[in-house]
Amino acid sequence: MEKLYGGMEGGGTKFVCAVGTGPDEIIAETRFPTTTPEETLEQAIAFFKKYKLAGIGLAPFGPLDLNPASPGYGSITATPKPGWSNANILGTFRKQFDLPMAFDLDVNAAAFGEFTWVPENQELESLVYFTIGTGIGAGILIDGKVVHGLTHPEAGHVQLRHDRQKDPFAGVCPFHGDCFEGLANGPAIAKRWGLEAQSLPVNHPAWELEATYIAEALSATIYLVSPQRIVLGGGVMEQSQLFPLIRQKVCENLNSYIASPVITAGMDEYIVAPSLGKRSGILGAMAMAISSS
Amino acid sequence: MEKLYGGMEGGGTKFVCAVGTGPDEIIAETRFPTTTPEETLEQAIAFFKKYKLAGIGLAPFGPLDLNPASPGYGSITATPKPGWSNANILGTFRKQFDLPMAFDLDVNAAAFGEFTWVPENQELESLVYFTIGTGIGAGILIDGKVVHGLTHPEAGHVQLRHDRQKDPFAGVCPFHGDCFEGLANGPAIAKRWGLEAQSLPVNHPAWELEATYIAEALSATIYLVSPQRIVLGGGVMEQSQLFPLIRQKVCENLNSYIASPVITAGMDEYIVAPSLGKRSGILGAMAMAISSS
Repeated sequence: MEKLYGGMEGGGTKFVCAVGTGPDEIIAETRFPTTTPEETLEQAIAFFKKYKLAGIGLAPFGPLDLNPASPGYGSITATPKPGWSNANILGTFRKQFDLPMAFDLDVNAAAFGEFTWVPENQELESLVYFTIGTGIGAGILIDGKVVHGLTHPEAGHVQLRHDRQKDPFAGVCPFHGDCFEGLANGPAIAKRWGLEAQSLPVNHPAWELEATYIAEALSATIYLVSPQRIVLGGGVMEQSQLFPLIRQKVCENLNSYIASPVITAGMDEYIVAPSLGKRSGILGAMAMAISSS
Repeated sequence: MEKLYGGMEGGGTKFVCAVGTGPDEIIAETRFPTTTPEETLEQAIAFFKKYKLAGIGLAPFGPLDLNPASPGYGSITATPKPGWSNANILGTFRKQFDLPMAFDLDVNAAAFGEFTWVPENQELESLVYFTIGTGIGAGILIDGKVVHGLTHPEAGHVQLRHDRQKDPFAGVCPFHGDCFEGLANGPAIAKRWGLEAQSLPVNHPAWELEATYIAEALSATIYLVSPQRIVLGGGVMEQSQLFPLIRQKVCENLNSYIASPVITAGMDEYIVAPSLGKRSGILGAMAMAISSS
């Protein structure tokens, strides 16, 4: 029998846990709301205890302490989510399981999932996965490895050009006001227009503005990191009318400066939706478990 | 006898060529103005022909074609510098030398030099080297390797917030007007203030504004790449009064969001001048030659 691995994608709203051998064989899956760390992690642990696993990949929301030399390694650091600051995810699991365990940010797991399980991505030297939803973040994969660096990228907080004549909305980020996340996450869309994002019609001017901010952040990413592909996931990106708008605006921003046929003629395959749909994160967490075992 | 390697740093104004075993033993060095590709490369080739070399590292200004599968591999691509578009640097050298040769952007060589020859940088997973002079660019080193990706980073062209009330200057970039390079390179400083950068007094308001733009670009780099150190070289950075201004403005931008003691307490060792001074590029070119031989 093939070995079984567990994956956990821990979001701010819900947790997803799955057990299987890989994307083609998930033998069990559960999802439950994110309440307190104690209750939520207990539910995840009880689920995994039912199986004989070869390893577990843990991919919670951040920010995380990913430095193995730090006393807080394995914890969520300062988060506005009540009760979760300093929650030690990895430590709690280690008390319950004597197994190889991988620990990384949810968006890093999604990037790793898109790389590991999507054959055409495997050929790439570099890939960036953005999640654009309630939160905004990015995972960067270079030579098949997730980039951590000093802490981990916090792409949602990059400052964008913000034309207050055109968009007087001040932004919702408690730290930076009108950073990328502050201007473009789900709550910002809802607050600016007085309607939830999913209730706005596809021809609403909200989407043109949203695409402008996303394209600004992607252009900065292209200039600074030069990725070979950019994958856009998360709840806001389920509005598929955004993709052509974003591609066009990135081209306008770059103004033919990046001399690559991928940019000048292949935009439809350069800025793409996740091949794994909504399952990049959970399948990435499982891939992390496999690669660390 | 130890093996001898050649390094070439090819700038838009001058070329530097050196031969030696490493930074502690340079046996010959020459510099000459950048004229036509034919004349300039001929001078470099004539210099290297005088030595029995084990390899050569070529690090010209960009943008470059760094894709070994491309027909233009080894060339400068579209540059505003007259005569140099499509100049095939590596191809010209390969006709003259049957030696291992490395080819990369000047700023990537500088990043690699700071990593290879500076012991405290060797411990880092990631380092970004910015050159801020006539041009602006950055080399990113992750796990000891230069990041190329789609083409190579073009950090000088990232768009920054530009408050036209405070700074009505339109920028000098022929592609993007007020991108980072357009607002903050040497020619932009000279044109905005009507005086060459090196003639402006240290307490001139030019430096406060310059530090604002540099800090914007570094903040974006920290959010997107999370490097463990940022090295700032190039002619403009010889104005050492910029360093404390930049560090302070980066801290203000991040607003305590990045929870790392390196940012909150170690800024003086996080944003630093090149340990190799003006020699990061040429010593990096030599390091490239050594590592590819």
